[in-house]
Amino acid sequence: MKVARFSTAGGDPRFGIVDDDELVVLTGDPMFSGFDTTGERVPLADARLLAPVIPRSKVVCVGLNYAEHKAEMEIAAPTNPLIFLKPNTAVIGPNEMIQIPPVEGRIVHEGELAIVIGRIAKRVKAEDASDYIFGYTIANDISARDQMFADGQWARAKGYDTFCPIGPVIETELDVSELSIQTFVDGEPRRHGNTRDMLHKVPELIEYISDVWTLLPGDIILTGTPAGLGGFVDGQTVDITIEGIGTLSNPARNRV
Amino acid sequence: MKVARFSTAGGDPRFGIVDDDELVVLTGDPMFSGFDTTGERVPLADARLLAPVIPRSKVVCVGLNYAEHKAEMEIAAPTNPLIFLKPNTAVIGPNEMIQIPPVEGRIVHEGELAIVIGRIAKRVKAEDASDYIFGYTIANDISARDQMFADGQWARAKGYDTFCPIGPVIETELDVSELSIQTFVDGEPRRHGNTRDMLHKVPELIEYISDVWTLLPGDIILTGTPAGLGGFVDGQTVDITIEGIGTLSNPARNRV
Repeated sequence: MKVARFSTAGGDPRFGIVDDDELVVLTGDPMFSGFDTTGERVPLADARLLAPVIPRSKVVCVGLNYAEHKAEMEIAAPTNPLIFLKPNTAVIGPNEMIQIPPVEGRIVHEGELAIVIGRIAKRVKAEDASDYIFGYTIANDISARDQMFADGQWARAKGYDTFCPIGPVIETELDVSELSIQTFVDGEPRRHGNTRDMLHKVPELIEYISDVWTLLPGDIILTGTPAGLGGFVDGQTVDITIEGIGTLSNPARNRV
Repeated sequence: MKVARFSTAGGDPRFGIVDDDELVVLTGDPMFSGFDTTGERVPLADARLLAPVIPRSKVVCVGLNYAEHKAEMEIAAPTNPLIFLKPNTAVIGPNEMIQIPPVEGRIVHEGELAIVIGRIAKRVKAEDASDYIFGYTIANDISARDQMFADGQWARAKGYDTFCPIGPVIETELDVSELSIQTFVDGEPRRHGNTRDMLHKVPELIEYISDVWTLLPGDIILTGTPAGLGGFVDGQTVDITIEGIGTLSNPARNRV
């Protein structure tokens, strides 16, 4: 099922299941209250899709998780998954504006498969990982590239407000072992990869991360970007398409 | 005023003002609902103090913010404040157990003055910073030292569950320009510093950080540790004393 968080005419956020060109409205957040429906249906055309989840605790990122990208970054990387954090204040939804801060250097897109955690996960074994996954969405792990290297630590360069677009929906039933990930800027293809090339796969990531940090419902894990560094500038739009989920589209503007 | 979050006999957390050896109970979280009192008073001896705030969004850390510590770390540091994040799942309260994970190398204490943000802060000017500060508390920015260097990124090494003790209270009225910070392990003095030696002072930190990340009420900023690297092991207790706030004390045990 594809779960959307949406609002209509500026109302409070609600949740719905995508059914063709309509949303079947749910009674609450399905992560906590299941998939009971209100009986109402809303045309998708009348709904504004929002970030499908706002992590209450963590946006976990996995760095250098595709071999080709690891090579092009020229960073000494550990053999374990390299994990770091974005703040939840960076999260925006589909079609929301990426605000480019007034910093030196390129602003880079990174299209990534994102795991949405559905249950408290603490020291979970890889073979049990699927029990803790609510679903998958698309994320854009945006980076201010020069700031990554200036600081050494990536939290600032990757954590600016609006630097974590997610959406458009959460797909709750998805085999993620071999999914195409494509990134476009103004419709032109940029990065292209496939989840089959992940160095550390989803179950291993959950085992590793949940041994370090207790994961809470709504936490998301960005699983890393394939090769093909590329930037975008004021006025452009970044689209990320992952097979089986959809397309996350965000325009970018210089911050005013 | 010294604001405590506490529970009695396993009840729900409540907030109170420390008055000598009693807590004057508040009607709610003073960050959001002010300082109205219920009329009840609870002896401090009957209260279990809890982490005085659970950040809903960010635990911001400032690295290398004291000159002597910057020198001993031998890390190339930017001239701007070096900021990074801990997850809120690392937060524990006074007297709670620090759980040492089974990793190589030293586990290091870092006693720090922590700013508690009280209002949404976005691109705040240094001269207005005090309007956004709810108060100050003590934090222990615990690090698994070998993992800091193994990963390059510090999120794992500094983000393990229990690696961010805070408390014991939030002092809402405090001049932080010259406060002694002392750290003890099993009562023996280790680090000793003074906030007057901060490279980037509190108003500058708030201007810098709130330009990158929108700060939310309850977010905390750990302002960096003075010189004197030191570790602790299973069975020891780390005490951090900051003038005008009190002492944050946490025992440590190997994780089981």
